[in-house]
Amino acid sequence: MSEIKKKKTILSGMRPTGKLHLGHFVGALENWIKLQNEYQNYHLIADYHVLTTNLDSSMIYQDSIDMLIDWLAAGLDPEKSPMFRQSQIKEHTELHLIFSMLATVARLERNPTVKDQARDLHIENMTYGHLGYPVLQTADILLYKGDAVPVGEDQVPHIEISREIARRFNNQYGQTFPEPEPMLTQFSRLSGLDGNAKMSKSLGNSILLSDDRETVKARLRKAVTDPLKLRKNDPGRPEVCLVFSYHKKFNVEEINEIENGCRSGELGCVDCKLKCSSKISDFLDPIIERRKYFEANLDTVKDILKTGEEIGRNKARETMIEVREKMQIG
Amino acid sequence: MSEIKKKKTILSGMRPTGKLHLGHFVGALENWIKLQNEYQNYHLIADYHVLTTNLDSSMIYQDSIDMLIDWLAAGLDPEKSPMFRQSQIKEHTELHLIFSMLATVARLERNPTVKDQARDLHIENMTYGHLGYPVLQTADILLYKGDAVPVGEDQVPHIEISREIARRFNNQYGQTFPEPEPMLTQFSRLSGLDGNAKMSKSLGNSILLSDDRETVKARLRKAVTDPLKLRKNDPGRPEVCLVFSYHKKFNVEEINEIENGCRSGELGCVDCKLKCSSKISDFLDPIIERRKYFEANLDTVKDILKTGEEIGRNKARETMIEVREKMQIG
Repeated sequence: MSEIKKKKTILSGMRPTGKLHLGHFVGALENWIKLQNEYQNYHLIADYHVLTTNLDSSMIYQDSIDMLIDWLAAGLDPEKSPMFRQSQIKEHTELHLIFSMLATVARLERNPTVKDQARDLHIENMTYGHLGYPVLQTADILLYKGDAVPVGEDQVPHIEISREIARRFNNQYGQTFPEPEPMLTQFSRLSGLDGNAKMSKSLGNSILLSDDRETVKARLRKAVTDPLKLRKNDPGRPEVCLVFSYHKKFNVEEINEIENGCRSGELGCVDCKLKCSSKISDFLDPIIERRKYFEANLDTVKDILKTGEEIGRNKARETMIEVREKMQIG
Repeated sequence: MSEIKKKKTILSGMRPTGKLHLGHFVGALENWIKLQNEYQNYHLIADYHVLTTNLDSSMIYQDSIDMLIDWLAAGLDPEKSPMFRQSQIKEHTELHLIFSMLATVARLERNPTVKDQARDLHIENMTYGHLGYPVLQTADILLYKGDAVPVGEDQVPHIEISREIARRFNNQYGQTFPEPEPMLTQFSRLSGLDGNAKMSKSLGNSILLSDDRETVKARLRKAVTDPLKLRKNDPGRPEVCLVFSYHKKFNVEEINEIENGCRSGELGCVDCKLKCSSKISDFLDPIIERRKYFEANLDTVKDILKTGEEIGRNKARETMIEVREKMQIG
């Protein structure tokens, strides 16, 4: 018996929303970078998924390139993990159509994630494609025979639908797909500068991975802190302070000093924020430097995408040949 | 100004159900054959659509070939009109996905045709793909920029959805697609041998285009007639007699003689049916002969399909290049 185990396959993807912020890094990218040695990763730029909530497609390409540059700048290695756009591999739409026969409307309508999203976006009349969001996502995962998908809690109901579709296909046409597992890694979610639980570009409460020192400093200056600490010498409560939560992430080595200074009142919010923005920028500096390289070498970025799309397409075609054989549709 | 008008494009398709019956001929095929000179026709074997109501795909290929042979035997000319399978042109699924963003769930749920079908087939939990039947059909039509679609009354609501999707795409991304018109030609629907308004293989009340003389004779023998004409010499009522409706279609030259004989009681049902089956077989003989040729030359049939699929694919790719340009998704 061979001791060599095949690496498990992970499919991870994001909708292209342009330049990424620290929340994307802490919530997902950091984890992907860690996983890229242990697993075979496929990284999907889910550009078709954008259309489920926004028909304006004019920014999709530029947003995709911007996101890809951030992926690369943050440390995803294209030699290890192909990166590709959903819209450039037709097989996503083929498998999506076939899977659309394997999920009932009632099942999709029970999906709490899409319901929440429709409510948040004030969508009264959901489109057919929006309801089918998890069906397309299932095609994204199973086209690459993904064993696991790194997701947040809110995405778990989608993965459950993917597992059901995989099972139904396998029962009907013969064993073909793994039932993908949600990979609930320790996602420390980063709050927004306004104290909102979620950092989000549309809420205007984020720090971009591409923000320079001056910008980060200016952004931090406006961050909310402990509302009871009004003057420099007032004692503060780090446990309710947003800026302290950033220190915990980006300034671990000084964390005790910061905490004590805040509680005693010795450390004022202005200085605390300066320390924090400086540490965040220390973290961002190499990312920004790599970003500059890629921005100056856009052809390299496009080549990475082209190569990723060839690798993705080959794997996708392989899967579809098997699907067609199993279904006997030639 | 040039006087040369471009031929209008028609997209006509059928789900592959295997060998066709007389109802298919009278209801659709006869009309397609007439249209093939005047219009640019694309003939679609809608094999993915089979999955909306039946997941068993094991017969789809054979059923497609059988249907294609009947198309050819009945007189569709592959030199004039390409014939192809939906499943072999990935662009159908691409455009389907894009269009899925342009129709709301509520709109599709109001579609009476799919509702009726679900009721007839006792489908309690409709699949997502079944609800999206008209979305896929819209992709089928607009991928070839179909100006018109020959349909029966029951299909008009689907074409209305196609027109809405075309309009929405054009408004959002710029003029690209025609709004296809339903082409309600004079469809004389052929009743089944049991008197059911619809001839249907699953109801066992049909005469196949491939049925030989003996089979047609035996099938006709069991056809329902005027229930008040019990004995040979009883006067009959042609207007309520199924067999008379077949005479009207396949025995026009003797129609007065048959009508008078029936009313006077001179012509008994046995003889009337023999005359009818003989005329139907006269009509079917050349079709059966051509069918035999194609059955003996399956490679020719496959070549016709291959060529049709190349032509279809080229047109489909051309359309998708335009769609991608309009949407700026590269």
